[in-house]
Amino acid sequence: MEGQVQKRRILLVVAYDGTNYHGWQLQPESVTIEGVLNETLSSLFQEEIQVIGASRTDAGVHAYGNVAVFDTTARIPAEKIPYALNRKLPEDIRIQRAVQVAEDFHPRRCESRKTYEYRILNTKFPIPQKRLYSHWTYYDLDVERMQQAAECLIGEHDFKSFCSVNTQAESTVRRLYELYVGRDAGSPEEIVIRVTGNGFLYNMVRIIAGTLIEVGRGRLEPEDVARMLEVKDRQSGGPTAPARGLTLVEYHFVELEDKKLEKPSEIG
Amino acid sequence: MEGQVQKRRILLVVAYDGTNYHGWQLQPESVTIEGVLNETLSSLFQEEIQVIGASRTDAGVHAYGNVAVFDTTARIPAEKIPYALNRKLPEDIRIQRAVQVAEDFHPRRCESRKTYEYRILNTKFPIPQKRLYSHWTYYDLDVERMQQAAECLIGEHDFKSFCSVNTQAESTVRRLYELYVGRDAGSPEEIVIRVTGNGFLYNMVRIIAGTLIEVGRGRLEPEDVARMLEVKDRQSGGPTAPARGLTLVEYHFVELEDKKLEKPSEIG
Repeated sequence: MEGQVQKRRILLVVAYDGTNYHGWQLQPESVTIEGVLNETLSSLFQEEIQVIGASRTDAGVHAYGNVAVFDTTARIPAEKIPYALNRKLPEDIRIQRAVQVAEDFHPRRCESRKTYEYRILNTKFPIPQKRLYSHWTYYDLDVERMQQAAECLIGEHDFKSFCSVNTQAESTVRRLYELYVGRDAGSPEEIVIRVTGNGFLYNMVRIIAGTLIEVGRGRLEPEDVARMLEVKDRQSGGPTAPARGLTLVEYHFVELEDKKLEKPSEIG
Repeated sequence: MEGQVQKRRILLVVAYDGTNYHGWQLQPESVTIEGVLNETLSSLFQEEIQVIGASRTDAGVHAYGNVAVFDTTARIPAEKIPYALNRKLPEDIRIQRAVQVAEDFHPRRCESRKTYEYRILNTKFPIPQKRLYSHWTYYDLDVERMQQAAECLIGEHDFKSFCSVNTQAESTVRRLYELYVGRDAGSPEEIVIRVTGNGFLYNMVRIIAGTLIEVGRGRLEPEDVARMLEVKDRQSGGPTAPARGLTLVEYHFVELEDKKLEKPSEIG
């Protein structure tokens, strides 16, 4: 009679530069974040491992703190996993943290808040060092108008006008806790849109960004955005801003509050 | 009898991501910024063009505002050159500005001030999106100690201890007008060293950065830096910090003050 091997569920906070990936989700013919994590974990722990991701980011989208969980029989302490894994991962993916969680914890089936950031480089000519992590536009954007327009989106709303028609979501109602528009204090030629919500529809942040850019350059009025929300029709929303400007900043899971999944940047 | 074709001298402000280049200076077997500019300008204007660069940055070093001049018989207005050139350049090089200057203006033979920035990412684990433009260190750096140590370097000094032994400079005396150490306001996990001077010796900013990192992590005392200056011996200086953290931010030429070569980020 063989003894049952105890499996633990481990949660990873994952940062990546999405430039060279076909997004998060596993695809047979393309290199994806999920695919690389599965391969690297399976090779490290010598067992077949499949991660479950919290957010299936699109091709070209970046993350400081996406989340994935996986099950393993390996007995390595959770806090040592980032060191072991980072040695084997390509340099555009880096684990920021690992903690053990309940066996049934599922990152897409529990209450969470997540924060995205959309960066716009607003200069006369592109700046090469910013090209992979921001969307460049030479139209002179009025940040105050963008702030005004953003206000009506905060709170619980039906975001159908700000959602790709390809969505599979049953409900298009979401709650935004915060939607900030301002210049980066250390790099004032970059405008940052920072948004925290209980969930986001497909392309929602990129459509909000595309719409606010239209307001900033004067092609839409701030009041138009409230009207877009009301009509609940994607046709009325602004364009979808490019993927490269978007970064998934962080996740907060209500049931893991004590695990402290803060911004990965802090010195531990 | 053929008429003499009038040549004009044009100054370019050049931004580049140095990651994929073997530095500025022309090399027969390697891709360099100078080489790409020569080829692109020659092809655009259908005449042989060779630029003269202000700063021959090393492999992996970046720029927001390096400067190059070249002579051309082409009659295109100077302010249209960035648009024409940027359409033909690879996306990791972008012209920020072009102005006509005196025929004998030489960017290395006139009085100038230049500003460099050195970025340190001080986090427990690397952040992939920052890897090409900052030097990552997990030692917890004390910024106040680094500021203290930096003070003694401001002003006119013999920087022999902060200069690669490979230098060809006749004098190792330089004047620093400003040397700032602080956290990036928009990204506080990044420490920025910003230095303006009338000239810099070979590897000087990277040795200053390497030395300040030693102070920040506690392996040197702030007072040690003043002693290093005094002994005038490279052996006494700190290590040379990696190229990827270094960016040439901008040039000011005293005789071109009215041409306003400001930071390229402003909307023109």
